[in-house]
Amino acid sequence: MRITVAEHPCGRLSDAWRFAVGTGRFELALRRDYQDSLALIQREIGFRHIRGHGLFSDGVGVHRPYDYRGERHVRHAFTYLDQVVDAYLELGIRPFLELGFMPADLASGDQTVFWWRGNVTPPRSHTEWADLVRATVGHLVDRYGLAEVRGWPIEVWNEPDLTDFWQDADAGAYHRLYEVTAHAVKEVDAELQVGGPALSPGAGDDWLPRFAEFVTDRSVPVDFVSRHAYTSGPAQHVPFGVHQTLAPAARLLEQFASPRQQLAGTPLAELPVHVTEFNSSYRPDNPIHDTAFHAAYLAPVLAGGGDLVDSFAYWTFSDMFEEQGVPTTLFHGGFGLLTHRQIKKPTYHLYAFMSRLGDQVLARGADHLVTRDDSGRVTVLAWAPVDVTGRDPVDGHTVRLSLPVAPARTAFLLRSSVSEEAGNAWRAWCELGRPASPTAYQLDLLRTAAEPARRHASLPVVAGRVELDLHLTRHEVTLAEVTPVTDETPPWWDERRLFGREPS
Amino acid sequence: MRITVAEHPCGRLSDAWRFAVGTGRFELALRRDYQDSLALIQREIGFRHIRGHGLFSDGVGVHRPYDYRGERHVRHAFTYLDQVVDAYLELGIRPFLELGFMPADLASGDQTVFWWRGNVTPPRSHTEWADLVRATVGHLVDRYGLAEVRGWPIEVWNEPDLTDFWQDADAGAYHRLYEVTAHAVKEVDAELQVGGPALSPGAGDDWLPRFAEFVTDRSVPVDFVSRHAYTSGPAQHVPFGVHQTLAPAARLLEQFASPRQQLAGTPLAELPVHVTEFNSSYRPDNPIHDTAFHAAYLAPVLAGGGDLVDSFAYWTFSDMFEEQGVPTTLFHGGFGLLTHRQIKKPTYHLYAFMSRLGDQVLARGADHLVTRDDSGRVTVLAWAPVDVTGRDPVDGHTVRLSLPVAPARTAFLLRSSVSEEAGNAWRAWCELGRPASPTAYQLDLLRTAAEPARRHASLPVVAGRVELDLHLTRHEVTLAEVTPVTDETPPWWDERRLFGREPS
Amino acid sequence: MRITVAEHPCGRLSDAWRFAVGTGRFELALRRDYQDSLALIQREIGFRHIRGHGLFSDGVGVHRPYDYRGERHVRHAFTYLDQVVDAYLELGIRPFLELGFMPADLASGDQTVFWWRGNVTPPRSHTEWADLVRATVGHLVDRYGLAEVRGWPIEVWNEPDLTDFWQDADAGAYHRLYEVTAHAVKEVDAELQVGGPALSPGAGDDWLPRFAEFVTDRSVPVDFVSRHAYTSGPAQHVPFGVHQTLAPAARLLEQFASPRQQLAGTPLAELPVHVTEFNSSYRPDNPIHDTAFHAAYLAPVLAGGGDLVDSFAYWTFSDMFEEQGVPTTLFHGGFGLLTHRQIKKPTYHLYAFMSRLGDQVLARGADHLVTRDDSGRVTVLAWAPVDVTGRDPVDGHTVRLSLPVAPARTAFLLRSSVSEEAGNAWRAWCELGRPASPTAYQLDLLRTAAEPARRHASLPVVAGRVELDLHLTRHEVTLAEVTPVTDETPPWWDERRLFGREPS
Amino acid sequence: MRITVAEHPCGRLSDAWRFAVGTGRFELALRRDYQDSLALIQREIGFRHIRGHGLFSDGVGVHRPYDYRGERHVRHAFTYLDQVVDAYLELGIRPFLELGFMPADLASGDQTVFWWRGNVTPPRSHTEWADLVRATVGHLVDRYGLAEVRGWPIEVWNEPDLTDFWQDADAGAYHRLYEVTAHAVKEVDAELQVGGPALSPGAGDDWLPRFAEFVTDRSVPVDFVSRHAYTSGPAQHVPFGVHQTLAPAARLLEQFASPRQQLAGTPLAELPVHVTEFNSSYRPDNPIHDTAFHAAYLAPVLAGGGDLVDSFAYWTFSDMFEEQGVPTTLFHGGFGLLTHRQIKKPTYHLYAFMSRLGDQVLARGADHLVTRDDSGRVTVLAWAPVDVTGRDPVDGHTVRLSLPVAPARTAFLLRSSVSEEAGNAWRAWCELGRPASPTAYQLDLLRTAAEPARRHASLPVVAGRVELDLHLTRHEVTLAEVTPVTDETPPWWDERRLFGREPS
Repeated sequence: MRITVAEHPCGRLSDAWRFAVGTGRFELALRRDYQDSLALIQREIGFRHIRGHGLFSDGVGVHRPYDYRGERHVRHAFTYLDQVVDAYLELGIRPFLELGFMPADLASGDQTVFWWRGNVTPPRSHTEWADLVRATVGHLVDRYGLAEVRGWPIEVWNEPDLTDFWQDADAGAYHRLYEVTAHAVKEVDAELQVGGPALSPGAGDDWLPRFAEFVTDRSVPVDFVSRHAYTSGPAQHVPFGVHQTLAPAARLLEQFASPRQQLAGTPLAELPVHVTEFNSSYRPDNPIHDTAFHAAYLAPVLAGGGDLVDSFAYWTFSDMFEEQGVPTTLFHGGFGLLTHRQIKKPTYHLYAFMSRLGDQVLARGADHLVTRDDSGRVTVLAWAPVDVTGRDPVDGHTVRLSLPVAPARTAFLLRSSVSEEAGNAWRAWCELGRPASPTAYQLDLLRTAAEPARRHASLPVVAGRVELDLHLTRHEVTLAEVTPVTDETPPWWDERRLFGREPS
Repeated sequence: MRITVAEHPCGRLSDAWRFAVGTGRFELALRRDYQDSLALIQREIGFRHIRGHGLFSDGVGVHRPYDYRGERHVRHAFTYLDQVVDAYLELGIRPFLELGFMPADLASGDQTVFWWRGNVTPPRSHTEWADLVRATVGHLVDRYGLAEVRGWPIEVWNEPDLTDFWQDADAGAYHRLYEVTAHAVKEVDAELQVGGPALSPGAGDDWLPRFAEFVTDRSVPVDFVSRHAYTSGPAQHVPFGVHQTLAPAARLLEQFASPRQQLAGTPLAELPVHVTEFNSSYRPDNPIHDTAFHAAYLAPVLAGGGDLVDSFAYWTFSDMFEEQGVPTTLFHGGFGLLTHRQIKKPTYHLYAFMSRLGDQVLARGADHLVTRDDSGRVTVLAWAPVDVTGRDPVDGHTVRLSLPVAPARTAFLLRSSVSEEAGNAWRAWCELGRPASPTAYQLDLLRTAAEPARRHASLPVVAGRVELDLHLTRHEVTLAEVTPVTDETPPWWDERRLFGREPS
Repeated sequence: MRITVAEHPCGRLSDAWRFAVGTGRFELALRRDYQDSLALIQREIGFRHIRGHGLFSDGVGVHRPYDYRGERHVRHAFTYLDQVVDAYLELGIRPFLELGFMPADLASGDQTVFWWRGNVTPPRSHTEWADLVRATVGHLVDRYGLAEVRGWPIEVWNEPDLTDFWQDADAGAYHRLYEVTAHAVKEVDAELQVGGPALSPGAGDDWLPRFAEFVTDRSVPVDFVSRHAYTSGPAQHVPFGVHQTLAPAARLLEQFASPRQQLAGTPLAELPVHVTEFNSSYRPDNPIHDTAFHAAYLAPVLAGGGDLVDSFAYWTFSDMFEEQGVPTTLFHGGFGLLTHRQIKKPTYHLYAFMSRLGDQVLARGADHLVTRDDSGRVTVLAWAPVDVTGRDPVDGHTVRLSLPVAPARTAFLLRSSVSEEAGNAWRAWCELGRPASPTAYQLDLLRTAAEPARRHASLPVVAGRVELDLHLTRHEVTLAEVTPVTDETPPWWDERRLFGREPS
Repeated sequence: MRITVAEHPCGRLSDAWRFAVGTGRFELALRRDYQDSLALIQREIGFRHIRGHGLFSDGVGVHRPYDYRGERHVRHAFTYLDQVVDAYLELGIRPFLELGFMPADLASGDQTVFWWRGNVTPPRSHTEWADLVRATVGHLVDRYGLAEVRGWPIEVWNEPDLTDFWQDADAGAYHRLYEVTAHAVKEVDAELQVGGPALSPGAGDDWLPRFAEFVTDRSVPVDFVSRHAYTSGPAQHVPFGVHQTLAPAARLLEQFASPRQQLAGTPLAELPVHVTEFNSSYRPDNPIHDTAFHAAYLAPVLAGGGDLVDSFAYWTFSDMFEEQGVPTTLFHGGFGLLTHRQIKKPTYHLYAFMSRLGDQVLARGADHLVTRDDSGRVTVLAWAPVDVTGRDPVDGHTVRLSLPVAPARTAFLLRSSVSEEAGNAWRAWCELGRPASPTAYQLDLLRTAAEPARRHASLPVVAGRVELDLHLTRHEVTLAEVTPVTDETPPWWDERRLFGREPS
């Protein structure tokens, strides 16, 4: 069945898919591979904000107590904070600040999370914590200007509903932290945007309503609410990795939708909702992240998520990420759109394809999204259905469209695809024998293999329409760019004369 | 029929194909597009020397007579010469000097060639010409060092057998110029390499023997002999272009071979032979240069030319070339491997494929060349046969090879192809309606379309051999890189668990 | 006498000094040295527009007649136009279009100007000329957008009052050309800005009034008026150069002022006035351009010109300029702010100093200009008086100022100077023996010598004021940047302990 | 008194001063500021090797035990090792490998050193340690080639004579570690260069003889011996810093000389000696490192150290160094030649000056070193004497030289200086109020202030000699480059005509 796409837009494509992206801990941003990767991503995708953990962890060195003349003082030091934020702004991306974890010298306990030991206990002094927040946010305002920093959302802590991330998952302690923090932020400037509670997918349904109740009752400022979304089952461990079952991608969209449902009727009902992390698996060592399947799996989420929330941030842009320690092989199931050394994974291309869409939505479907931009170019993102069990993979699927184009006799089609066969560096890496430490030549092969397959064609335009049949192979995600052609061929051109044949 | 490629090399691949490349007139090298193009080519191909016309033409400004106190003096000015040669050396390429054309103030007549008016008349003072040569070569030696400049061949004039390039095609006048020039060069340093006579394909068979006789009789130094090779018929003009018939590519190899044949038995018989220009058509406005046909047509020439001569220089590396004036459209039949703005033509890829071959030749054939490098990688260049009349194009052709590889269970294949469909920016440009001045978006499309099709696969190695079937489409040139694989897959890897299925 | 600078601004510093800059002929912009030079200048100075001759000369290849089926047609080709304008916009500068000279195939005569032979005769067909203008401007609008091109002034021809630049300096013929051209521009879009008549300093006083009368009488569109300004006397020739007397710099300001005076009372009285070329000497081979004198001579012009006109464009930004042929030595008296290979001349620094001024003018004087920016930084440009005869050079001069600064105990002073001794690459080049073709080491020395002398100091702030004494040596131009200091020195700092002395 | 420098060289300047440089812990090399800093240093100084701690510490992630089917295995992972060494080689510098500290999972205890917690206990399994060494060195040989890695010295551990760096400073345990390690290295290849014992300045005089005795008795391979050199007294703590007394610089040269003295008569007497760390203070928070004093203090060490040892490595090239945690202010007394963000300290320039010396030594003295290179350029490094107590600083000092130069009438002098006033970014930073987190404008000021003062002059050459008087201010280090001039001034040049005066 061919779908006839209407000429008039049925909506606009929101920026929610690119509003934010996740990153490994804060000071990793000092690394060159990190910055090179982010530069590439900004050039080809263009996220607006970046969010990660560890701003206040000891590796960034902000909170620095010292003794002078027998008294305790605290110096707030922004050496690395400035280096990182300067780099972000140069790269055209802005912070989505997450305030955490706890500086060791301010912590009330010694529980840590991750290989890099982020302290997840409440402050032993809420006053000193408030000073830290105020000093940091104030410094950012001084350095980058109030107009700039007002555009950076400020989130309080991460997944306080999990014992791994907040000691005892103590909601009351979180509420207190939130209150102190929100006020400290607003003391710097009342229009700064503060929010939370950055819940994990496992948070009980009452977490958010209780948070709403708390802030309402106590008139605590809140400018947005946030949560996370993941779809994987329990980790089955193998050395240096895990395997997990996955729920269908629709489950992600349901998680996106839940905050508005849970807050309906509360004073927070109209607030922006940010999904400050999402992915399939929450593990940085699940090879599913590296696959072509993963791009096809997430395609409908990217295409449709913007209808449900103000942002949803892919966790994370790069494999330069060390929650489980230093990766031991190039591909290792990391979250990254890019591996170390900037090899593009299929999901990278899904994002790159999204960035080439127009902002007028002409049609949406279970396997496609059709847009147009102001120049008249029509762009189709289409994807093959997937089976999350891996048992019944879909090996052929066709999307048939009739597209409206501007007056012309022909249109130029550029089609770009990633699939099991194409734009799939992981597959090439497997074929290369899974080299832990690829040589320069192997890295070059992988970069080549990582590029999408491209083909172009001249399509006839009949009655203002192009008929486009997109045949998709297993796990394929494809972008079709259709541009009406202005023909400048001169009247004397005769292809038959190319080889010197005299004109007849 | 499958060809079983022997394990032991049957020869070495010479550097003749990359020893030199042609360029538009000297001062075009001051341009940014030129230098950007050359940088790209050096990165991906890597020529050793570069040769073009016009070193002594007025646009370079070397020969500068002036009056002082009533007398004529000449200043030799190297402002642009230095800028160009500095740039060449930074780009990793060295001059192949061509001494010509005539400075207007030193010319005996006013006949010029090309839109840019190179003067092609003998000097009115051979003394002043000798001064010019000596001063220029001497300056180069001072600036770049004797060891460096001794490696730059120095050719005297261009195609003196044609009335367009040398007034009256006067052999006697050329011999005199050659003699004066060769001596002037050797006065700077006896080990500098000087040669000629840079004959056109139309030179009579006696031109070279007479040149040999002249230099022998008068003991004139000569370190190499040079000629050009082209295969096109007469120009059939259309606005801003020509069409021409083409002789088969074998005719180029015959032209390569002729100097050694003609000089057999003379004292010049053992000298290096440089084909200082070659191409199909000698016109910079014949669209054949832009086609996939052109790569397939020249493939056997690149594969085999090194057996016949010491170098053969593709005329020219870039469309930044103005013999017929400023090009009016992006694709216009220029000689370039690259268009303006660095769009790669199919013939560019033929050269880039050559640069990835190993230096051990394992097999040669009418449609293939098999090599290996020291790392054990086996590389196959294969090409489809072509029909130069365009009447009976070959639409399918298969090369079947049994390749010897180092011990391994599998080999990784990367195959790169250009053809009518792939790596063919000209085809995409035609489909875009032949835009004279492409927009930024169109240029981006063309750069994408210009990349070869790539595919990779894992091939079984059986008894130290890989069976490789290369199916070639019309005008296809393909490069297959075959690398034996070291398998680092850990014992616990089980692809069936990718989607979280419990191990059985 | 110390000048007490008031705290409240007396005006704003206009952008007229940086609104435009001159360049050599249009296609020189294709060169790498040109683009590298412009990139440097945009980074450190930041001009808004760039203007030069030769857009329609044959080297750019726009006007391309051809015969097809026995009839004359014209193709308008934008190959190089696009390359140049694309490059300009990437470098952050916009065209100030000058429409001229005449394409050879459209010219009514063969009179040319300059070594590069710009044709200066009227069109043989005003219709074909109008087509050329319309096609070119229309193409620019298509490619860069109407909003963008409306910001580019469009000037008709260059110095039609001189026989060198316009055959017979025929005012009537110019008026006709202007009329045809202005209408052609406005046919593309009525809000495009067209103007003229780009008069030389030697134009009689009635030229502009007659032009005003002509356009008024015939209702010809005119959006701005333009003229040039130079102060040099007749050329005294030496080989490869000239010497000329100079009038005082005040004469330049008088020339700037004249169009408004001449147009007072006419309908053109309120139009913007652009000085589309100015310099001391109008010769590209007068060494005065290379000197420290030149910066001090022009300093009051840059400081004050913006009060008189909407722009005044230094002729030219680079020595990559070929009106008199290819320069024979690195320094050769070219117009450039930069030599070939980007050696900065003293006048370059005058412009770079201007670019660091704030936009609030606090004080102006015969030897100084004091500004402040929004951050509170106070900036002083000061210059030594000069003697244009060279007979009585001023060897010492002091500017004493009392500057208002924001509350602080100290201020940081950075002072940058160029003078006979400092920031004077030409002097270093003379000391090096005037090498025509400097070696890499010499170029490195020259780049080092070209940097201004810098010194910094801590100045006391007393009652909100800093007392600043600027002693100037011969031909010195200096920039003093004064920034109030926030002292973060910790209480425990004791410089006496630097070498380990125990605290007392 | 003027020193007459002889024309004939009295020796060659060895490369010992640039053979190696120190760095913060291994994985800091992944950072961008680190790599940018190293790139700058390689461009302007050019070290050969780089050495730092922590190759085997957990942040690099090499030693990775895991359980599989109930058994312990170890994976050796080179993800970051490769990224770092790839970067080093791209930057033109090679590793000087230091094997240490102990991976936590291989350690016998939990004693650590530094903020970043390097484990300093012996391995709990010498077999597993030997595997780690063999696997790592073997991997490097595989990846970079044997010829390359044979050029990298391999040092066993760091300062085993200190309890901070080696548990209990147990010499016997070190000897055992050395033996196991040296054999493991030689198993990979017998020509790899292994050595130790990397002693601290505080090691007793018998440490090295006992090491020599141990390796001799047990025939343990040793290719070089190594020690460290520092001159500071005990740390006097203030918040975020220390002060220390300093011994005169001659004490460093004595430390350099001691290994050869201590090993005289042993079988190790002829081995290369590497001072693998040296500096004034061994603390990364002593502001003395940032001063102009420091450059003058070390000048005689750099000038003379190469006579005593094969290398002496400045500890360290960059302030990107975290032994005491993240620095809290831009200048903080770090070891670096560069601060974070590449502000050059005075000692940076001392090294940059050294890199411009020729390799023929013409004269040496207590305050100068005179060299010449093959082009004939004579280069003088001179320095002011210093007082290490800071009580009697030397405020004026003159070095008078008579220098031999090639035949010429004049010579060009370029003089570059750092001193209290010039090239002293730390002084500027103090004047700016010691901003902890400088703004972009302040960083720009600091970069400007960090450049040496430069002046140039034309000096007369009389009888093949230039008389050079170098007046030095407090803590000045100066470089004078003297180049004989070839005068190309044309006969018609008359400076009096510059302003247009007619010739007389």
